[in-house]
Amino acid sequence: MNPVIPAAAKAPAASSRALPRTMKAVVKAAAGPGAEIRDVPVPACGAGELLLRVLRAGVCGTDLHIFEWDRWSAGRVRPPVTLGHEFVGEVVERGAEVAEFRAGERVACESHIVCGHCVACRTGNSHVCENTRILGVDVNGGFAEYVTVPAVNAWRAPANIPLEVAAVMEPLGNAVHTVFAGPVAASSLAVTGCGPIGLFALGVARAAGASRVIASDISPYRLDLARRMNADAVIDAGRENFVDRVRQYTVGRGLDGVLEMSGNPNAVRDGLAVLRNGGRMSMLGLPHEPYELDWNRLVIFKGITLHGIIGRRMFETWYQMDNLLGSGRLDLRPAITHVMKMEQFNDAVGLLRSGQAGKVVLVPWGEQG
Amino acid sequence: MNPVIPAAAKAPAASSRALPRTMKAVVKAAAGPGAEIRDVPVPACGAGELLLRVLRAGVCGTDLHIFEWDRWSAGRVRPPVTLGHEFVGEVVERGAEVAEFRAGERVACESHIVCGHCVACRTGNSHVCENTRILGVDVNGGFAEYVTVPAVNAWRAPANIPLEVAAVMEPLGNAVHTVFAGPVAASSLAVTGCGPIGLFALGVARAAGASRVIASDISPYRLDLARRMNADAVIDAGRENFVDRVRQYTVGRGLDGVLEMSGNPNAVRDGLAVLRNGGRMSMLGLPHEPYELDWNRLVIFKGITLHGIIGRRMFETWYQMDNLLGSGRLDLRPAITHVMKMEQFNDAVGLLRSGQAGKVVLVPWGEQG
Amino acid sequence: MNPVIPAAAKAPAASSRALPRTMKAVVKAAAGPGAEIRDVPVPACGAGELLLRVLRAGVCGTDLHIFEWDRWSAGRVRPPVTLGHEFVGEVVERGAEVAEFRAGERVACESHIVCGHCVACRTGNSHVCENTRILGVDVNGGFAEYVTVPAVNAWRAPANIPLEVAAVMEPLGNAVHTVFAGPVAASSLAVTGCGPIGLFALGVARAAGASRVIASDISPYRLDLARRMNADAVIDAGRENFVDRVRQYTVGRGLDGVLEMSGNPNAVRDGLAVLRNGGRMSMLGLPHEPYELDWNRLVIFKGITLHGIIGRRMFETWYQMDNLLGSGRLDLRPAITHVMKMEQFNDAVGLLRSGQAGKVVLVPWGEQG
Amino acid sequence: MNPVIPAAAKAPAASSRALPRTMKAVVKAAAGPGAEIRDVPVPACGAGELLLRVLRAGVCGTDLHIFEWDRWSAGRVRPPVTLGHEFVGEVVERGAEVAEFRAGERVACESHIVCGHCVACRTGNSHVCENTRILGVDVNGGFAEYVTVPAVNAWRAPANIPLEVAAVMEPLGNAVHTVFAGPVAASSLAVTGCGPIGLFALGVARAAGASRVIASDISPYRLDLARRMNADAVIDAGRENFVDRVRQYTVGRGLDGVLEMSGNPNAVRDGLAVLRNGGRMSMLGLPHEPYELDWNRLVIFKGITLHGIIGRRMFETWYQMDNLLGSGRLDLRPAITHVMKMEQFNDAVGLLRSGQAGKVVLVPWGEQG
Repeated sequence: MNPVIPAAAKAPAASSRALPRTMKAVVKAAAGPGAEIRDVPVPACGAGELLLRVLRAGVCGTDLHIFEWDRWSAGRVRPPVTLGHEFVGEVVERGAEVAEFRAGERVACESHIVCGHCVACRTGNSHVCENTRILGVDVNGGFAEYVTVPAVNAWRAPANIPLEVAAVMEPLGNAVHTVFAGPVAASSLAVTGCGPIGLFALGVARAAGASRVIASDISPYRLDLARRMNADAVIDAGRENFVDRVRQYTVGRGLDGVLEMSGNPNAVRDGLAVLRNGGRMSMLGLPHEPYELDWNRLVIFKGITLHGIIGRRMFETWYQMDNLLGSGRLDLRPAITHVMKMEQFNDAVGLLRSGQAGKVVLVPWGEQG
Repeated sequence: MNPVIPAAAKAPAASSRALPRTMKAVVKAAAGPGAEIRDVPVPACGAGELLLRVLRAGVCGTDLHIFEWDRWSAGRVRPPVTLGHEFVGEVVERGAEVAEFRAGERVACESHIVCGHCVACRTGNSHVCENTRILGVDVNGGFAEYVTVPAVNAWRAPANIPLEVAAVMEPLGNAVHTVFAGPVAASSLAVTGCGPIGLFALGVARAAGASRVIASDISPYRLDLARRMNADAVIDAGRENFVDRVRQYTVGRGLDGVLEMSGNPNAVRDGLAVLRNGGRMSMLGLPHEPYELDWNRLVIFKGITLHGIIGRRMFETWYQMDNLLGSGRLDLRPAITHVMKMEQFNDAVGLLRSGQAGKVVLVPWGEQG
Repeated sequence: MNPVIPAAAKAPAASSRALPRTMKAVVKAAAGPGAEIRDVPVPACGAGELLLRVLRAGVCGTDLHIFEWDRWSAGRVRPPVTLGHEFVGEVVERGAEVAEFRAGERVACESHIVCGHCVACRTGNSHVCENTRILGVDVNGGFAEYVTVPAVNAWRAPANIPLEVAAVMEPLGNAVHTVFAGPVAASSLAVTGCGPIGLFALGVARAAGASRVIASDISPYRLDLARRMNADAVIDAGRENFVDRVRQYTVGRGLDGVLEMSGNPNAVRDGLAVLRNGGRMSMLGLPHEPYELDWNRLVIFKGITLHGIIGRRMFETWYQMDNLLGSGRLDLRPAITHVMKMEQFNDAVGLLRSGQAGKVVLVPWGEQG
Repeated sequence: MNPVIPAAAKAPAASSRALPRTMKAVVKAAAGPGAEIRDVPVPACGAGELLLRVLRAGVCGTDLHIFEWDRWSAGRVRPPVTLGHEFVGEVVERGAEVAEFRAGERVACESHIVCGHCVACRTGNSHVCENTRILGVDVNGGFAEYVTVPAVNAWRAPANIPLEVAAVMEPLGNAVHTVFAGPVAASSLAVTGCGPIGLFALGVARAAGASRVIASDISPYRLDLARRMNADAVIDAGRENFVDRVRQYTVGRGLDGVLEMSGNPNAVRDGLAVLRNGGRMSMLGLPHEPYELDWNRLVIFKGITLHGIIGRRMFETWYQMDNLLGSGRLDLRPAITHVMKMEQFNDAVGLLRSGQAGKVVLVPWGEQG
């Protein structure tokens, strides 16, 4: 069963229809676990902004953390806020000073709203802007019928991809950023952790010419998805010895790079152990707490380079995604396992907690999935 | 008709057979046009060398230049010398101090014999060694039944590729070096000039995830080969406007990179004209004579980077080839159009001059093609 | 005689004084040679802009070209336009939506007004924006009592540098961009062409740890300035053999890099000839017309990288300048040979044409030099 | 008191004098703490080797670890072995197949003897060779009257530097490798840990144009040496708050890079905390045991790049040292605090343990210090 429906079937309703005053939204209403579906005002479109009718939205692990109100969420999120930072929408209205988009265009969105003034922003590194605010975390996001976004954050979705794929360009961008942080083509790479971004990374690494792409996870369900994303080999790190298996696959040479998507300390250590000397580990996965490394043996004596990866390069990563998806070289559909109604948000949370899902995409009220 | 025969059919004769004293070879016997097939001594295997029985050898444009005795050849080649710098052979004998290969192994060869002492060699850049000597140009090469090569120049051919492909790893390395001199994945690239190295570059760029690979040439025969190497678009630069066509294919964005394989001044100028600002041109093709550029308009105002490309990175390029071929991501067979007997060398020259050939591979005396 | 006066002596008049309606400016009034000093309106400060009282302005070769109305100028400049793209000013007024500067602050200015929407701008490469407009070329510049600039183009001048130096940060940025386009520290570099940007490049290369910095020019006057900028060696390319002299200075190794500031074809050819294999040439100098190279011998066989350099990286280059000047590591004063009244603009042009000047800085009407 | 005596005073004895059969050497004679001065045979000069008369040798922290027989030593060193991996010597004899050096030349030595066959060695990355053997650790080293070394490891010392400096090119190379692992010029850098390599790194960073070089340590003695190596600021990390002080020095911008020479977990954490987003930490210091990091906050959210640094790039680093020292841009003498007789090796160990020394250099028996 392939939940993804071709783009052609998704013709949008005319955008000229009158805007309602209120809309449904998935709102973090108060400190503490949970989220509510509420009626909230349709947001006004400010200067420099676009008002989008949301067509599809992806659910991210971060949404779960906010739902569960973990320590990070409790320290950062200021309720009430509408959740959702991965989505595609149709342009309904342009704010003052916006010349670039037409009503009816379908746009995905960079979720980082950056300051433009810090050193990072002024040197082409906005992805590490010191004053980043994130859609669906710090400001209202896309788990709603409508959302406003800065026009500079909007990206015209390639015409050939289904809405479900356009909805997840934001997390795909994390994967692309991680994969492209070092050499890929003609290299042996492992992706440790096969959640949705790990699955996307497998697809990107294959599309970009890695000659061996090895996937590891401890979930047979996810490893099966990894196979469907064309991993050359999969390792069940709960049952198999990762280091031995990789040595075997790479004929003793070890890995040229590890794309670390799990945040799991053992995955990091094993990945470093089996990197060839001079290799790179690009780390996107967030550990739950600090952990230790044997730095001498795993990093310094081996001459390893470690990259901390956050966000997407703005906007190289988006051009790269556009090219990968627009050319048809990359197909994410096997990693998108469920399309659900947005009003079933609590069910989606449960599904993700069960571990029996890849990427889950939500269809807002009134949209046809 | 596919001239390439699977590797499995190529079982070598036992390497223990007694070595003859003389052998057949294609020799540049004297200054001036032409080449002769001669009986010459089987070379002795010196310290640090391997003696190879040649299994297949590729014919290169450089061989034609030496045959025709152009100005470059007249200034460099010191006859008599056995031609041939692209080949795969079977190890017959190891010289003193060589521990790494076994008799019977099939090896391709880096053709540049480097000094190991100059700045380039001492900093990982032997491909621009100041004292390079080239097999088949400065020392006896592989258009013969046997050849000796420095053991450090030998590369175990991947087990899964046919002999015809192993024979052309040297020129494939030129292509890989050129393609990988700048960004490839998720990029729009053009290959200008679809001789064998250009054709290989198309395959490499596709395998390495370029999202648009455009081929240009003035020969319909070669453009047809380019299509078979999976170019996304081909441009007949003799009939079509290259710049306009590229603008159209890239939706106005221009190219991220040009892989210049023709040495043709107009191809260079047109390629630069349609590079996006900040793009790169990697230049392998050798022009017949100096030519001029409008540097301000084509290079400086656009912030272009130009790379002069020579040889293969020793030995990154070989690891990359090994990975690309060994993983099956890259298939060169459509570019290898003819397999001929080495004794037909003069016919091969004629065929190449006619322009109705891609890569031509020769089968030495006594080998079964 | 050092024309540069310490910053402390330059206390600005109070910025609260009433603005006049008109001001003096050096205006390219019509197509054809020449420029006029005219009374023009003081510009209004638009949204996103700063109005600056000009404190000092540098004269650039480009100003001469516009004065002389060469082919490039005739094709690009649309009179009337106030000249001047190198200057430092005091903030007098902030336009709507500008929060970052206070009245009275001294700011230098990036001269490229970029679009923010093209691929280059969206990927951290605004210096090659496809829609650049230049202050003093395409829009009114700083050879005037007042000028308006986009606030994003303004850069707070380091407090410790004299006004004359702050005035020339724009061309200094060209030099920094060129020098930092490749390795510098512990390298042997040559600067070919010792006009003001070449002189600045000498200082930057020395400050950045180049171990040998060789200057060449054909003007003894400029070579003397090169010595004052601490070139390790100077070559009079009109009388001496550049290639031989460089070989001698580098003990046969050749140069690691050439910073090409002359646009002279022979300087380019000689620089390439004496680059070590694998070296780089970064080209900022603009030739008068297309010229030819022996590409095989000078670029391809040597594995050279050529960079076309334009503008300044926005804004890495400005941070780098800030650090170099603010730390006192770089002193440009020997290269600033003349400080003149702006009303003497025609005299400044004559001086520059005579070749007996380094950088010439102008003091606007009413300012004390 | 400056213990360094100009090179000119060091004229070597004639190299033609007859070689003795035995010599004095500092030998790790058996597992367990300590080292002995013994009479041992003068080594025979094998093929590809040079026999050197040792002129000066530096004492390294690694020598202390072997003396003390820590866990690392116990796991690696196989007594008996002559210690000493930093030294300069005079060529006495060339083995078979060595053409490059003349008797009487002074050479410093790369201490890593590499295999030449692993992936690292074959791709210009011998510094992370998988089969490295180290002089004075795995094979007999330079704390002796004579030593043999592979000729490829020998480096002609620049003529203008004193013997004491030539003796410590090996650890200087560690510093150069670390500093040059990322941007230096026009950057704000900190060196955490002011042992000899940290002190050298300060000098290198200054020579290479860093605009702010901050030193930290917990030893007032070492911080005083840091001042003498021209650190722009020094921080006593035992008494002062490193993060606050750096923020203050960098006017809130944070550091562009940290050169980590201490192996101290708090230095690493504080260094990461005050790196600007997107900055780099290059780690050479070896911690005593594994330690933990708050990866999310210190590495991933900030987009930091960490480099593990080992050895010296072979031989870029040596060319860089040659240029830095040979040009006089870099002066290491303030960091070389003691020159002692080699027979006082035990005293040198005591001195280093006391923490009241920078680099200690030893003068072999029969040499005049």
